[in-house]
Amino acid sequence: MAGAASNEAEGPAKVNAALLIIGNEILSGRTQDLNLAYLGKKLNEAGIQLKEARVVADDPEQIISAVNALRTTFDYVFTTGGIGPTHDDITSACIAKAFGVPFGRNAEAEQLLLTFYGKENANPARMRMADIPEGATLIDNPVSVAPGFKIGNVHVMAGIPKIMQAMLDNILPNLQGGAPVLSRTIVAYSPESAMAPTMQQLETDFTGIEVGSYPFQRMQRFGTSIVIRTTDAPTLKAAGDQLIATLQQAGIEHQEGELSKPEPA
Amino acid sequence: MAGAASNEAEGPAKVNAALLIIGNEILSGRTQDLNLAYLGKKLNEAGIQLKEARVVADDPEQIISAVNALRTTFDYVFTTGGIGPTHDDITSACIAKAFGVPFGRNAEAEQLLLTFYGKENANPARMRMADIPEGATLIDNPVSVAPGFKIGNVHVMAGIPKIMQAMLDNILPNLQGGAPVLSRTIVAYSPESAMAPTMQQLETDFTGIEVGSYPFQRMQRFGTSIVIRTTDAPTLKAAGDQLIATLQQAGIEHQEGELSKPEPA
Repeated sequence: MAGAASNEAEGPAKVNAALLIIGNEILSGRTQDLNLAYLGKKLNEAGIQLKEARVVADDPEQIISAVNALRTTFDYVFTTGGIGPTHDDITSACIAKAFGVPFGRNAEAEQLLLTFYGKENANPARMRMADIPEGATLIDNPVSVAPGFKIGNVHVMAGIPKIMQAMLDNILPNLQGGAPVLSRTIVAYSPESAMAPTMQQLETDFTGIEVGSYPFQRMQRFGTSIVIRTTDAPTLKAAGDQLIATLQQAGIEHQEGELSKPEPA
Repeated sequence: MAGAASNEAEGPAKVNAALLIIGNEILSGRTQDLNLAYLGKKLNEAGIQLKEARVVADDPEQIISAVNALRTTFDYVFTTGGIGPTHDDITSACIAKAFGVPFGRNAEAEQLLLTFYGKENANPARMRMADIPEGATLIDNPVSVAPGFKIGNVHVMAGIPKIMQAMLDNILPNLQGGAPVLSRTIVAYSPESAMAPTMQQLETDFTGIEVGSYPFQRMQRFGTSIVIRTTDAPTLKAAGDQLIATLQQAGIEHQEGELSKPEPA
């Protein structure tokens, strides 16, 4: 992995990933994607940074070119969607083409599906889900049996969130993450634009931190949730303490921790 | 526009688009993107097909390379995010770099912001939002004034959904769409895998249609919403009628139109 092997002088290795979301229904707005946010959070906890996501149509050219662009750029690639039983489920065949390997019936997957459906219900559409690129290893699907698979650094998962999440649970223990990203949130009751110089100063004073700002409006007041992120715990503490000291000096009301969700109106 | 100028023998011109979503908070899972689905629907109504979306971090290299890849491939490009007042709002500067044009204070945008905030509240962070690539035209922001802009075929919008939607309303009348995509939905009470051969046959029998299938489970029954899409009304009618005839022959219960939302449990 390029990331894991990077220069030690830069501190703990950074491991990155990309997500490829496959499906016309996401691009047409018919289906709201929920997998990106879920994967981003879970990877963060595992010390892996999701750096890019792409959404492409059920189009072989688009899928193959995106898979090849992402797998050569990022440590890990995840795909969601397009591994079901119908004619527009073309992800698995496209992954085989992207890797230049043969594509066909996988004996292990075939057995799983035959056992699950029974021979009388194992119609050709369902059995298509046992066609897997040669050399891939299966990813268990405890929800509806039809497996995902891993080939090279690419993990191919279902698009339905419940199934995707179950598959990811089976993948995560086998990923090699870097140092997990730690975060500290401080809520300041001051508009984002007024906080901008303070946040910029913080990024200048502390190397290796990332400062995110999330403006909000609550009870007729403007405020900013400021999130400091770094893999280094002492730096995180020092940067947060400096921010709090600055806010105190400026007489800006603030609190440590996430802003609570508003009460239902 | 490449799409609009395409071969007339293929039927009405197809116009396509891509969306670039910019922001660490989307990739980390902190913020759930809602702009993709909204844009996809609105463009469809305008006869423009959203063909790809990318999500990149607040990273100049990633933003510039994605903008240049997308604007040379698709008729229209839309971006969301990264045009606010803080240090990590770098979209506008990156767009200028992608187009190789100077970047700096735009007199019209400056006047808008000065009028809105008043001179006493026009701090440097807020006034940064008046820095726009040279040659761009502004996109009105009726929510919070700081404008978006259009340069070449790229439309730069805010990330906050309410503002993005208002900006899009101002952009849509100026876009040149192809023939709008029409759709017809037929719900069949039969599992997706059993419907697969029927749907594939439909795509073979009618040129220029796209058949999408959306499995569902309702009241202990499995079913499939089958959506036929095409720009040609007579083809849509004929394909839908053939599907209904096939379902009738096979004795599969079905209904015309979208499946209604389930009652709250």
